[in-house]
Amino acid sequence: MDLNADLGEGFGSWKLGDDEALLGVVTSANVACGFHAGDPSIMRGVCVSAAARGVVVGAQVSYRDLAGFGRRFIDVNPGQLADEVLYQIGALDACARAAGTRVGYVKPHGALYNATVRHTGQARAVAEGARAFGALPILGLPGSELLAEAERVGLTPVFEAFADRGYTPEGTLVPRSSPDALLTGTDAVVERAVRLAEAGEIVAVDGTVLPVRARSLCLHGDTPGAVEHARAVRAALEAKGVTPAPFASGRMVG
Amino acid sequence: MDLNADLGEGFGSWKLGDDEALLGVVTSANVACGFHAGDPSIMRGVCVSAAARGVVVGAQVSYRDLAGFGRRFIDVNPGQLADEVLYQIGALDACARAAGTRVGYVKPHGALYNATVRHTGQARAVAEGARAFGALPILGLPGSELLAEAERVGLTPVFEAFADRGYTPEGTLVPRSSPDALLTGTDAVVERAVRLAEAGEIVAVDGTVLPVRARSLCLHGDTPGAVEHARAVRAALEAKGVTPAPFASGRMVG
Amino acid sequence: MDLNADLGEGFGSWKLGDDEALLGVVTSANVACGFHAGDPSIMRGVCVSAAARGVVVGAQVSYRDLAGFGRRFIDVNPGQLADEVLYQIGALDACARAAGTRVGYVKPHGALYNATVRHTGQARAVAEGARAFGALPILGLPGSELLAEAERVGLTPVFEAFADRGYTPEGTLVPRSSPDALLTGTDAVVERAVRLAEAGEIVAVDGTVLPVRARSLCLHGDTPGAVEHARAVRAALEAKGVTPAPFASGRMVG
Amino acid sequence: MDLNADLGEGFGSWKLGDDEALLGVVTSANVACGFHAGDPSIMRGVCVSAAARGVVVGAQVSYRDLAGFGRRFIDVNPGQLADEVLYQIGALDACARAAGTRVGYVKPHGALYNATVRHTGQARAVAEGARAFGALPILGLPGSELLAEAERVGLTPVFEAFADRGYTPEGTLVPRSSPDALLTGTDAVVERAVRLAEAGEIVAVDGTVLPVRARSLCLHGDTPGAVEHARAVRAALEAKGVTPAPFASGRMVG
Repeated sequence: MDLNADLGEGFGSWKLGDDEALLGVVTSANVACGFHAGDPSIMRGVCVSAAARGVVVGAQVSYRDLAGFGRRFIDVNPGQLADEVLYQIGALDACARAAGTRVGYVKPHGALYNATVRHTGQARAVAEGARAFGALPILGLPGSELLAEAERVGLTPVFEAFADRGYTPEGTLVPRSSPDALLTGTDAVVERAVRLAEAGEIVAVDGTVLPVRARSLCLHGDTPGAVEHARAVRAALEAKGVTPAPFASGRMVG
Repeated sequence: MDLNADLGEGFGSWKLGDDEALLGVVTSANVACGFHAGDPSIMRGVCVSAAARGVVVGAQVSYRDLAGFGRRFIDVNPGQLADEVLYQIGALDACARAAGTRVGYVKPHGALYNATVRHTGQARAVAEGARAFGALPILGLPGSELLAEAERVGLTPVFEAFADRGYTPEGTLVPRSSPDALLTGTDAVVERAVRLAEAGEIVAVDGTVLPVRARSLCLHGDTPGAVEHARAVRAALEAKGVTPAPFASGRMVG
Repeated sequence: MDLNADLGEGFGSWKLGDDEALLGVVTSANVACGFHAGDPSIMRGVCVSAAARGVVVGAQVSYRDLAGFGRRFIDVNPGQLADEVLYQIGALDACARAAGTRVGYVKPHGALYNATVRHTGQARAVAEGARAFGALPILGLPGSELLAEAERVGLTPVFEAFADRGYTPEGTLVPRSSPDALLTGTDAVVERAVRLAEAGEIVAVDGTVLPVRARSLCLHGDTPGAVEHARAVRAALEAKGVTPAPFASGRMVG
Repeated sequence: MDLNADLGEGFGSWKLGDDEALLGVVTSANVACGFHAGDPSIMRGVCVSAAARGVVVGAQVSYRDLAGFGRRFIDVNPGQLADEVLYQIGALDACARAAGTRVGYVKPHGALYNATVRHTGQARAVAEGARAFGALPILGLPGSELLAEAERVGLTPVFEAFADRGYTPEGTLVPRSSPDALLTGTDAVVERAVRLAEAGEIVAVDGTVLPVRARSLCLHGDTPGAVEHARAVRAALEAKGVTPAPFASGRMVG
């Protein structure tokens, strides 16, 4: 099981989350590439820390939207979006290279992640932007258009599940506007992670047991108690004999 | 003799200069990387056209300043500046790679070009940012701190001269605020280029003959008659048996 | 009949359209406020020219999207959008005030104009942002949510029609993706303008005659032949005894 | 004695400082206007809180530099700078107006504050940008070019002193790079404030007693213990019978 989290989400004088603490827990770092957050110095700094700890660097590509932190759908033309994805991966890869590693995978951020679950044009754009860079695996939601398009263009789709998000009986995420959107309490988050790792199951908000195949587990870094949750999840997995390990390599293929 | 010019200096709906016409003349394209101009689609488009014509792509790195087109000195901390240079090269290299080529060299733009003639800290930052990416030659003014720092960090300095700028008897450029700043008239520009290529000489504004070693000649793309000047220079050089050829390779070393 | 057009749509070194020529034709100038185009110096310059010619300045408010020129829908939260509208109006009003006039009306730009035809939340946001500034009339499409919301918050809705856009038999604009989207040829544009001014009628693409009440006619500034069309429309209207006059006052009420 | 501090210095998802706590202490709020920090919703929110507490809103105008938080000198052309100052004041005034108040004064931020101590061109630009908006007082350092230019264009210069900055025997601020740059410890800050208010004196780093006339005292909001320092200063002043009161009015003249 891989553990991934969003990192490097500051800009200039502004910080968000505790990058160093999370880098001690995760095996894959989704690094902001400057379009919703992340400036070159933050990006390079995260790459250096990640490389030193053996954490794989992934490009967390986003809409161009610093003001909205990439959390608002933008109806970007797919051709332009593909080019923006390519640009962001290249920028981060230069930072990774300077830190002795390489970008190992791609995961869209925020509204782009949500849009590419169903929006075929934008999903294809992300996949094509990534493929134009190289043979990078794409991390995303099982059943999403994003992963279907990744496969279509010859990239490896990688399934992720969420440690702290409520699931509907249909296996989709409970919208953030709902009171059931987030699991609260470390116990619930840990239980979710362990059951997923051991049995491949997630319990939906109504009690339905869902079979879920996930190679990576997403931990959030900006919620209250995020670092504590992350540490508890890792400790519990290790106690069960599950050693977290990255799905991608810092040495890019192709 | 290499011929270089600035390209891709639009943004979104805005264009500047006639990129396609200049790509038919130059052997090296200084491509804007998004900080003073250039968006990912423009960058990728220029790389595709350049690759198709055998024109080498160079990273025209800049201060982060869309509003000022990179023409205003910014007192950026050298550490941050190096990271910004690294980021820009990586972003352009991804576009170049998608077009079947690679970034072949680095040249600073506008105020950063001017600043790094004397500002050692920023000159070193540009050189270190480039070296962090790879073994890229740096194109600049003979005698500049930029080229001294390039050499210091192990990069190849490449000398350029200007086809249409007035030179002082000391060999520096006449400031743009002076009436002698620009050569006007195609004849004067052509004569400058031919004499430089054949004899390694430039005639200063007071008639002094300066010995100038230059591997590349910079043609401006945004002045009136720019394309005509560029075509006339190339035709005259070829008539004298000088075939313009790039100094760098689209295949990066390292 | 008022004649309006978009102005000041450059940014930094980039220009778009011929502002001075259009200011000699129109009676109302929709001035970009810095979010999709327009920097403070361009804005102030247009205000100075407009004031000198008696052209009324309007705030052409937009999504925050320089890279997309405001032509892409952004799913901005209505509360934030209202604040962004307020900010843009205030910024332009300062420029107008320095030029001896005031902002006289508000018209959304590009994708925000299109969105607020049907998107009630964003339409209300634009109306509320405008009302928070003062009692400014809102210029828009008859039947749009934007004008309904303007009325709801106590602002004056002002109807506009388009000199060069194709209309469906239902009175909506033919999408830009259709070949009938634009009237081509000065004659067709002039005929449209004169018939609208004299008879209150527009002929749809299928020949249906639509009754259209419009206080203002929108002339485009960035299409080929834009300035010629605009001049021909004004000349034809004046020849018919219709003297173009603004609907708003440079002296704001409230 | 007026107490001023910087507020609203977040952007989008990012926050900086504790605005609500400082608004309970200061009498004048230097509100970021979107160029170095501050988005329209943050600006409007601070204005609403300030108005509710009777705190006067001032425009903290800055270079256009989100990435550098306005802390880097930019060699902006004075004409453009004046227009940028005008734009920022207008944008904030719209937010203030919507909150039932008006912008009461102008104070430059960060590198622009430092530059305008000696850079006559930029000092004049700030003064002229402010005057183009209206008759606003300018808050700054005694002896600065900024206040000289303010006076020259007919604006009221207002002197400020710093509660927590080291002073040289010549009365200038100790550079931030020096260990003596900041007073540490609440006692030292409180003593500085009380002596200044009671005796018009500041003790320099070498013990020299400087006569200092200051109508306003600047409290920093982003240093460790900032809120505690601010509260202690206010309490000490009130204990000595000095009731903090703003120098400007929320009702703008002119």
